[in-house]
Amino acid sequence: MIERSDAARRDGEDPLADHLQLFAIPEPEVIYMDGNSLGRPPRMALVKLERTAWQEWATGLVRSWDHWVGEPGRIGDLLGTELLGAEPGEVVISDQTSVNLYKLASAALAARPERPVIVTDDTNFPSDRYVLSGVAAAAGGELRVVDADPVLGPQPDDVAAALDDRVGLVSLSHVGYKSGAIADMAAITSLAHDVGARTLWDLSHAAGIVPVELGETGADLAVGCTYKYLNGGPGAPAFLYVRTDLHSQLQQPIHGWFGHADMFAFADDYRPAAGIGRFVTGTPPMLAVAAAGAGIETSVQAGIAAIRAKSLSLTGLLIDLFDEILGPAGFTLATPRDEARRGGHVAVRHPDAAAICRRLIDRHRVLPDFRPPDTIRLAPAPLSTRYVDVWDAAHAVAAAVAV
Amino acid sequence: MIERSDAARRDGEDPLADHLQLFAIPEPEVIYMDGNSLGRPPRMALVKLERTAWQEWATGLVRSWDHWVGEPGRIGDLLGTELLGAEPGEVVISDQTSVNLYKLASAALAARPERPVIVTDDTNFPSDRYVLSGVAAAAGGELRVVDADPVLGPQPDDVAAALDDRVGLVSLSHVGYKSGAIADMAAITSLAHDVGARTLWDLSHAAGIVPVELGETGADLAVGCTYKYLNGGPGAPAFLYVRTDLHSQLQQPIHGWFGHADMFAFADDYRPAAGIGRFVTGTPPMLAVAAAGAGIETSVQAGIAAIRAKSLSLTGLLIDLFDEILGPAGFTLATPRDEARRGGHVAVRHPDAAAICRRLIDRHRVLPDFRPPDTIRLAPAPLSTRYVDVWDAAHAVAAAVAV
Repeated sequence: MIERSDAARRDGEDPLADHLQLFAIPEPEVIYMDGNSLGRPPRMALVKLERTAWQEWATGLVRSWDHWVGEPGRIGDLLGTELLGAEPGEVVISDQTSVNLYKLASAALAARPERPVIVTDDTNFPSDRYVLSGVAAAAGGELRVVDADPVLGPQPDDVAAALDDRVGLVSLSHVGYKSGAIADMAAITSLAHDVGARTLWDLSHAAGIVPVELGETGADLAVGCTYKYLNGGPGAPAFLYVRTDLHSQLQQPIHGWFGHADMFAFADDYRPAAGIGRFVTGTPPMLAVAAAGAGIETSVQAGIAAIRAKSLSLTGLLIDLFDEILGPAGFTLATPRDEARRGGHVAVRHPDAAAICRRLIDRHRVLPDFRPPDTIRLAPAPLSTRYVDVWDAAHAVAAAVAV
Repeated sequence: MIERSDAARRDGEDPLADHLQLFAIPEPEVIYMDGNSLGRPPRMALVKLERTAWQEWATGLVRSWDHWVGEPGRIGDLLGTELLGAEPGEVVISDQTSVNLYKLASAALAARPERPVIVTDDTNFPSDRYVLSGVAAAAGGELRVVDADPVLGPQPDDVAAALDDRVGLVSLSHVGYKSGAIADMAAITSLAHDVGARTLWDLSHAAGIVPVELGETGADLAVGCTYKYLNGGPGAPAFLYVRTDLHSQLQQPIHGWFGHADMFAFADDYRPAAGIGRFVTGTPPMLAVAAAGAGIETSVQAGIAAIRAKSLSLTGLLIDLFDEILGPAGFTLATPRDEARRGGHVAVRHPDAAAICRRLIDRHRVLPDFRPPDTIRLAPAPLSTRYVDVWDAAHAVAAAVAV
C-alpha cells in the first residue's frame, strides 16, 4: 500500500519542489493533471506579458520592433540548444504547429518530386495526419498510414515495412499524444535515411518533458507547440527545426516578408533568407511570443535532465498506483511501463471514462484529460505537480468509478 | 497661416476627443504618427490581456477552451459586420496575414485549375506580391504585376487591361501601404467578375480606418491584419473573409484540426467544416487574440463613420499644412488629395527623408514612418491622435529639414 505520507515524503526530497513557486496557481485546491494539453502559467510569463504590453507596446511603440524582430530566433535558439539537442540557428518560433508541419512537409516533397509519398502511423495526432495527407495529395503522392500498437506506438520495423524509394518523408510524433509512448527517433531516422527518405518529427508532447536529441539522432526536420510542457500559454506560437545542411536545399511555399533575405528592403521579388529565417512567414504575435519565451526559460532554468528524472518518478508513482487501485477498479494501462519508452503522461482506459472524467471535474476538483472514446490522460507536469497531487489524483480516479 | 490654436480649437470640438482616454499613453510627450504600422494599446486590450492570463489561463486552465474555441469566430463576426460590411459567419480571426493570403489565393486557384494567373499591381505590399507569386507559380501560372501610379494606386482601367480568361484571381490592397490611396473595390471587382476572375483584397491598411463594403462591392475574398488601425497589438492575429456562397466551393491547403467539421471527434480523415471555419488551421494564440478582440471592440464602440470623418479631417489638416510649410520646404505629396481616394495616412517624399526621420525621432520626439528610399508616412490614428499632434508633427517635419 502506497500511503499519502509516502508521496509527501517524496515531495520533501524533491530537488525541483521549489519550482512550484515559479508558477501562478490561484486555485491550489484544483489538482491539475492536464499539463500535456495546456501548461500552467509561469509567473515569469505573466511578468513578461505585462512588460511587453506596457514597456514595449504602450511605451516603446513601433520602436520596439528593433528588439521584437529578433525574438523568434533568440527564443528558438534557447529552446533548440537547451531542450531539443539542436545547434544555434536551427530552431525558430513561428506560426502554429499545423502551419509549420505544412510548410516543412511541403518543402521536403517539393525538393524531390520523384518521392511524393509520406509515411506516418495511425497513432499520430489526427491534425498531423490531416495536414500530411493534404500535402502528399497535392504533391501527387499519398499518405501511407502504418498500423501501430496503440500502447507502444510506431515501432522501427513497422515503419521500415512501409518504406520504398517513392517515400520522401517519414513524419511521426516523437511522443504519442494518446499513449505517451516514445518513438525511437534514432532508429526510425536511420531506417528512413537507408531508403533516402527524410524525417519530420512532431515534438509537441516531447518538448520540455523528455530530452530530445535532434542532432544526435540525425533527424532532418521537426515542429512542435510551446503550450504543453513548455508552459507558453494557450495556443502559444509554435516552433520549427530544420537541420543546418538542409536550409539551402529546402524552400517552403508561403513566401512572407519575414522569410525574406532582406525584408525591410521591400524588394520586388522574394529571395529567401539564407538560414532558418526562410521558414518563417509573417509578423509574429509578440504578446504571445513573450509568454512562450518565458515558458521556455522556466524549463531551461530547471534543466531537462532534472525535469525528466522527476517526470519518470511521477509517472512511475502513477503506474504503481494504477497497479494498486486503478487496475482492480477496471482500468487498463495504455502507456508503456518501460521508462525508456514512456513520455510525460500516463493513459488509462475505462469503458465509463467520459462519465468518470465529468465526476472528477465536478466532485473531486481534479482536471484530467478525456480522449474519446475511453481514454483518460493523466499528465503530471514536473515543475508544477507534487507527488501528493499524483496520489490524490489516482485516488480520485478510483473513487470516481463507483458512484 | 494655420495657427496651433486653430488645431486646439478643433480638438475642443472633436466628438471623438474623449476616446483618447481609452488608450494607454505612458509618454504623452511623444507624438505618434505611426498608427498605420502599430496602433497604440487600448486600455481594454491591457485589461483583457490580464484577464485572459489570470482568470482564463491561470485559474480556468484547460477548461477555458470551452470559451476560447469560439473567440476567433465571435471577434471575426464583430469585425466583419461592424467594420467590413460582411455578414455574420464570413470573417474569422486566424493565423497571420501572409498565411491567410496564401490559404485563400491557393484555394481560389485550386478550385479552377484552368485559371492559374493572378493579377496584382506594383504598389501592392511586397509581402503580398511574394506570397501571390509563389502561389501562382505553384499552380503552373504566373503573377501579372500591373504598373500603377505610385500616388493614385491601381486604377480600374489598368487592372482591366491585364485581365483575360486565364486569370483566376485579382489581388490588391484596398488602401496602398505607401501612398494611402484607396483602390476602387466595387469597380475593380466588377471588372474582374466580367472576365470570370475573383478578387482577394488585403485590408490591412483599410480595416478600422475607412468603411469597407465587402458585401456591397461583391468582393469574393479578403485578408488583413489587426495591429494597425485596429490596435490589436504587435503582430496580432490576422483575419480572413470568404463570401458565404464560396465556402463550399473553396478548400484551403492547410488541413489543420481547427478547420475540421468535428475537431474533437479525432476522426481519421480530414473533413472541412461547413462554414468559414474550414479556412482556419491550428490552435489560435489566445493571449494575442484577446488583445486583438479588445482593439476591435474599441473601434466598434467609436463607430467607423465617426472614425472616418475624423480621419479625413486629420489628414486634410496635414495636407493643408503640407501646402503651407512642407511643400515650400522641398517635400512632394505622395497621397491623393481627393477625399474619396485617401486612406488613413499621408505620405510625403523628400530626397533627405531618412535623415529627416532620424532627426524627428532623436530631436523632436515625433515618431514617423520611413519607407525607403525617400518616403515619410504620417498616420494620425483618429482615436488616439489630436489635431494639435498633427500640427506639431507637421511643424517638426519642416523643422527637421533645415539642420
